[in-house]
Amino acid sequence: MCRIPDGIGLDVAAPLLCAGITTYSPLRQWGAGPGKKVAVVGLGGLGHMAVKIAAAMGAEVTVLSQSLKKQEDGKRLGATEYYATADESTFKVLRGRFDLILNTVSAQIPVDAYLGLLRTGGAMVNVGAPGEPLSYNAFSLIAGNKSLAGSMIGGLPETQEMLDFCAEHGIGAEIETISADDVNTAYERVSASDVRYRFVIDTSTISS
Amino acid sequence: MCRIPDGIGLDVAAPLLCAGITTYSPLRQWGAGPGKKVAVVGLGGLGHMAVKIAAAMGAEVTVLSQSLKKQEDGKRLGATEYYATADESTFKVLRGRFDLILNTVSAQIPVDAYLGLLRTGGAMVNVGAPGEPLSYNAFSLIAGNKSLAGSMIGGLPETQEMLDFCAEHGIGAEIETISADDVNTAYERVSASDVRYRFVIDTSTISS
Repeated sequence: MCRIPDGIGLDVAAPLLCAGITTYSPLRQWGAGPGKKVAVVGLGGLGHMAVKIAAAMGAEVTVLSQSLKKQEDGKRLGATEYYATADESTFKVLRGRFDLILNTVSAQIPVDAYLGLLRTGGAMVNVGAPGEPLSYNAFSLIAGNKSLAGSMIGGLPETQEMLDFCAEHGIGAEIETISADDVNTAYERVSASDVRYRFVIDTSTISS
Repeated sequence: MCRIPDGIGLDVAAPLLCAGITTYSPLRQWGAGPGKKVAVVGLGGLGHMAVKIAAAMGAEVTVLSQSLKKQEDGKRLGATEYYATADESTFKVLRGRFDLILNTVSAQIPVDAYLGLLRTGGAMVNVGAPGEPLSYNAFSLIAGNKSLAGSMIGGLPETQEMLDFCAEHGIGAEIETISADDVNTAYERVSASDVRYRFVIDTSTISS
């Protein structure tokens, strides 16, 4: 069982139990912190938490998103840089830059191109899984001693650690609270990526 | 510059400067040691060094080779178990077994099947690179927080560390010494995988 610390609202804490721990765990595991350059791929429900948490850990955070549409948000959440992956020059400019890339996108990505953004010894960790297999060249890992890893949520002790960390740093999810009646509309908006960044249902509105 | 320690022959030391460091580095980096189960894929020039070094580090070593042809050798070099990868049951029997898999084979492998042999948090490190891209399912990494990594030889300080480690543990490469005149035959035998496990040219036979 986890305890929601005082000083963190139940509404903004709710998504931490999924998006929070899913991003906190690999960031902690792979050493995000002062002096480390972390890229977060995708600024959605998972990505926006990754940016907040990595910045609070002291890392220098860059968002890699398809477009620059959410750039202002990304910087407000803690990123110092923001690049569009649709722009091919991004992969040249950022070559060899990052210690850690946290990929929150559940879609096909050009794995070798992203591995090229890592420094020697760097790692790319996936928390989103596309349905189709991904392809990579073994040499993209061998040259530069790089890693490609996966991470799935986290255990209860680490979830408590994450909640305490978030409370200490005043971090909650960015949410839009809805009443139970709005669930269908919210579902459609999630499908259309029209949410910044998580819906939370006010359970007091559920009719008994 | 590296110093070949006393007590290690120059002939058996020569291949350590390639096959030795290439396998020592990832074994050290990824924590091979007492209580750890390490699989070495392929028993060739790299693989036979990996078995010797991992066993000397205190790990429990299993060889995964296409056939059982070199089983006796593998066990003599330090492996406690030896399985044929051509036998499909191998991937069932060994499921979830290893902390670390060191893949020394420069050929296409079914990446997801090998990742299935790892424990939670385990890693497969490639030191051999096939020319064609490899394919994997992101979920094979995510479920079980696994890693797929690459490693390329090692720096000079680590090479010295490896040489000292090998001297301390009485480890050299298994070699067949040839004279300069035999180079062409040796080359053909390497192409035919007919070498156990490295040829060393006696440079005193090179005519000036």
